[in-house]
Amino acid sequence: MEDEEMLSSMDPHPFLSLFPLEEFEFPVSIRLQELPLFPQWHLPLKLMAVFLAVAFVYTFLRDVMQPYVSQSKNDFYKIPILVLNKVLPWTSITLLALVYLPGGLAALLQLHRGTKYSSFPVWLENWMGVRKQLGLLAFLLACLHAIYSLSYPMRRSYRYKLLNWAYQQVQEKKENSWVEDDVWRMEIYISLGILGLGILALVAISSLPSVMNTLNWREFQCVQRILGHVALFLCMAHALVYGWRKWVELKHYVWYTPPSFILASFLPGVVLLLKAVLAMPCFNKRLERIQHGWERPGRKGLIDKDSL
Amino acid sequence: MEDEEMLSSMDPHPFLSLFPLEEFEFPVSIRLQELPLFPQWHLPLKLMAVFLAVAFVYTFLRDVMQPYVSQSKNDFYKIPILVLNKVLPWTSITLLALVYLPGGLAALLQLHRGTKYSSFPVWLENWMGVRKQLGLLAFLLACLHAIYSLSYPMRRSYRYKLLNWAYQQVQEKKENSWVEDDVWRMEIYISLGILGLGILALVAISSLPSVMNTLNWREFQCVQRILGHVALFLCMAHALVYGWRKWVELKHYVWYTPPSFILASFLPGVVLLLKAVLAMPCFNKRLERIQHGWERPGRKGLIDKDSL
Amino acid sequence: MEDEEMLSSMDPHPFLSLFPLEEFEFPVSIRLQELPLFPQWHLPLKLMAVFLAVAFVYTFLRDVMQPYVSQSKNDFYKIPILVLNKVLPWTSITLLALVYLPGGLAALLQLHRGTKYSSFPVWLENWMGVRKQLGLLAFLLACLHAIYSLSYPMRRSYRYKLLNWAYQQVQEKKENSWVEDDVWRMEIYISLGILGLGILALVAISSLPSVMNTLNWREFQCVQRILGHVALFLCMAHALVYGWRKWVELKHYVWYTPPSFILASFLPGVVLLLKAVLAMPCFNKRLERIQHGWERPGRKGLIDKDSL
Repeated sequence: MEDEEMLSSMDPHPFLSLFPLEEFEFPVSIRLQELPLFPQWHLPLKLMAVFLAVAFVYTFLRDVMQPYVSQSKNDFYKIPILVLNKVLPWTSITLLALVYLPGGLAALLQLHRGTKYSSFPVWLENWMGVRKQLGLLAFLLACLHAIYSLSYPMRRSYRYKLLNWAYQQVQEKKENSWVEDDVWRMEIYISLGILGLGILALVAISSLPSVMNTLNWREFQCVQRILGHVALFLCMAHALVYGWRKWVELKHYVWYTPPSFILASFLPGVVLLLKAVLAMPCFNKRLERIQHGWERPGRKGLIDKDSL
Repeated sequence: MEDEEMLSSMDPHPFLSLFPLEEFEFPVSIRLQELPLFPQWHLPLKLMAVFLAVAFVYTFLRDVMQPYVSQSKNDFYKIPILVLNKVLPWTSITLLALVYLPGGLAALLQLHRGTKYSSFPVWLENWMGVRKQLGLLAFLLACLHAIYSLSYPMRRSYRYKLLNWAYQQVQEKKENSWVEDDVWRMEIYISLGILGLGILALVAISSLPSVMNTLNWREFQCVQRILGHVALFLCMAHALVYGWRKWVELKHYVWYTPPSFILASFLPGVVLLLKAVLAMPCFNKRLERIQHGWERPGRKGLIDKDSL
Repeated sequence: MEDEEMLSSMDPHPFLSLFPLEEFEFPVSIRLQELPLFPQWHLPLKLMAVFLAVAFVYTFLRDVMQPYVSQSKNDFYKIPILVLNKVLPWTSITLLALVYLPGGLAALLQLHRGTKYSSFPVWLENWMGVRKQLGLLAFLLACLHAIYSLSYPMRRSYRYKLLNWAYQQVQEKKENSWVEDDVWRMEIYISLGILGLGILALVAISSLPSVMNTLNWREFQCVQRILGHVALFLCMAHALVYGWRKWVELKHYVWYTPPSFILASFLPGVVLLLKAVLAMPCFNKRLERIQHGWERPGRKGLIDKDSL
């Protein structure tokens, strides 16, 4: 038993001198194929793949196919960066919302049951077990989203568009093309996005095993819960300010589909609303009492109902 | 005693399967409110908040209020990004200078006292105890500063300005708007800033507990002290090259206040100068002798003077 | 012996309260000068310095000297950013290729020798011992390359060029300056570069001691080997798409030298080709058998030959 443990977990020392990558560098006794391969990441990675695929199809149809079909406009050049960079933040904010949703659901369940002495359903337990992985994937996608966004103005397509706009402005003899409203929108949503990413980075760093070990329970909860919700709020605000007035402008509802920022901010909105409701004194106090062991009188019957 | 220790420090294993965030996920025996909450971060965070506030007010008055009052120019759109991005580097370089100042002060004190066998004042001890936190905050702000700066050209405000400049250039029939001096200034200060950030990142990574444990004293000191001073030097050079000739141009002294880069590079300048003076052979040799236990003859009287 | 060990390795606890940087903060018993200083980093750092120097001279001659000599064009402003940002990715991809080359060479050697029971030459052992360091340096340079690239459009030189191009477009009455081919090239190579950097980041994070300890052999190998090769492939594709048609355009062969992207993608190409060849069933099966202890009949003679 102990021997097996020794074989499957890596001894750090030989590493420093060898850093094995090829088959022949492993101890003979290691049967690689029998070791587990990221068992906790399977579900989060599958979820991410599904969200990425759905968001890609949705954005591709709206941003590339629709102009091609209705106006014969060739916008296929948008796929490698512009479409991808709508897919990444959408998936990222959805995964981040999924980190904080199960906690809210579990609290609701406790309120409904009126006790903490009955275990959660299996799917909720499993979900709560992969929150860390979901959060790290959300952070990875958010970082990629930031780099993709920062690369916009260096692209040739942006340069050519700028030159053409300048040409048009000269032709139209328009001295000033400043649009105050548009300027404010962009300054604010970029700023919110950067702050959100910065706070998310702190949460991610505190998930590193060695950093986590230096924190006590309260510090860890403070970083993961408070900073995490702040980051989720900033990211949702980032998405909403990005949308600005597109909510009400019909031209953004191509093929009767809403713009992706509305869909993307729906789930985070639900999570934050649930959080806000649970933080209201009437619910919060009851929840605290339940979590200190209090049980609603006459809970007996409820248990039976739950178990149905 | 040991029991309490076990409760307050987190056992990493349940984490991997659960990752607790909500109240009900903690062991009942944990009384969260009684655990300390980042005691070593209180002072650095307060310092950072004060610097951020002062720098914000100063920059807001100079960059937004002054044009509004004197020319009725509405530059309020600058607040979310441009003002914030002057506040961030200013605070960052100040915090970084504060990391390396107490070491210099302590060396000065030892030189003055002529012995190493008297303890430092309490405030200096406390200051030296939070250098790591100050440095990490400086690095965080520097990263945010970098992302904010990189986002400049993607903003609508930059696009509109570019288009208006292009329009003007066409109106003035100016074939070439190249300003060699300005080009050099910007190429150099961007390059210095990126190199400074890169080196600061190495210092920050070596502060991760697990990385720190793989280093010996000499390696750790080498990274933290030598690379740290190099980073401070590069960041100060970055600020000075950013300023370029604004030192002597009166128009940059609006409302009789100096541009912020002068104020920002003052403290790092003092720290680096102090470092350079202490590295001079005459002082360096004496300091080394003191640190190996040598005492200045007739120190007795000085101790009495110190203790007054 | 144990005492010495205790002195040379740092006890993490005093750190949290003190974080020593100056000489006088170390225990007296520590003789700093006798401790080793990053022994495993000497070779990789020297290699990096050599590659940086060679790449710098090559790029400086082609991009700055050649226009100066042949057209008296003053392009010296390119040195701090544009030249440096060709040197960084070139060195980075070369170091990354050097991480994965020795594994391939060792496999070749095993195939040739027909056994795994003879040790590798010393230089190969040493090389394999510094792969981690080579990879981390490659990642650092890749990050710097990304930040430098993202800073392009914020530079004054880019702004002036844009304004001049706009002026020219107006003079030429060219309504549309869009070049479909050029747009596609840039969208693709930026996207590939960002994805490559993202995957390289995962590999780098898995090299952190505390993260590495939570992985088992199979997981570690999966991240380091599979993701590493994917990153190398993406980076090479990034370089080749960056080059696009410059392969065949004679004007890019100034002073009879090939463009740097051709030279930079040569070594990664060799490594990936070698990997592909070794993954072919005929070689792969034999290699597996050798690594499970099988020996080619009549190997006796070969050993003698090897030992010559």
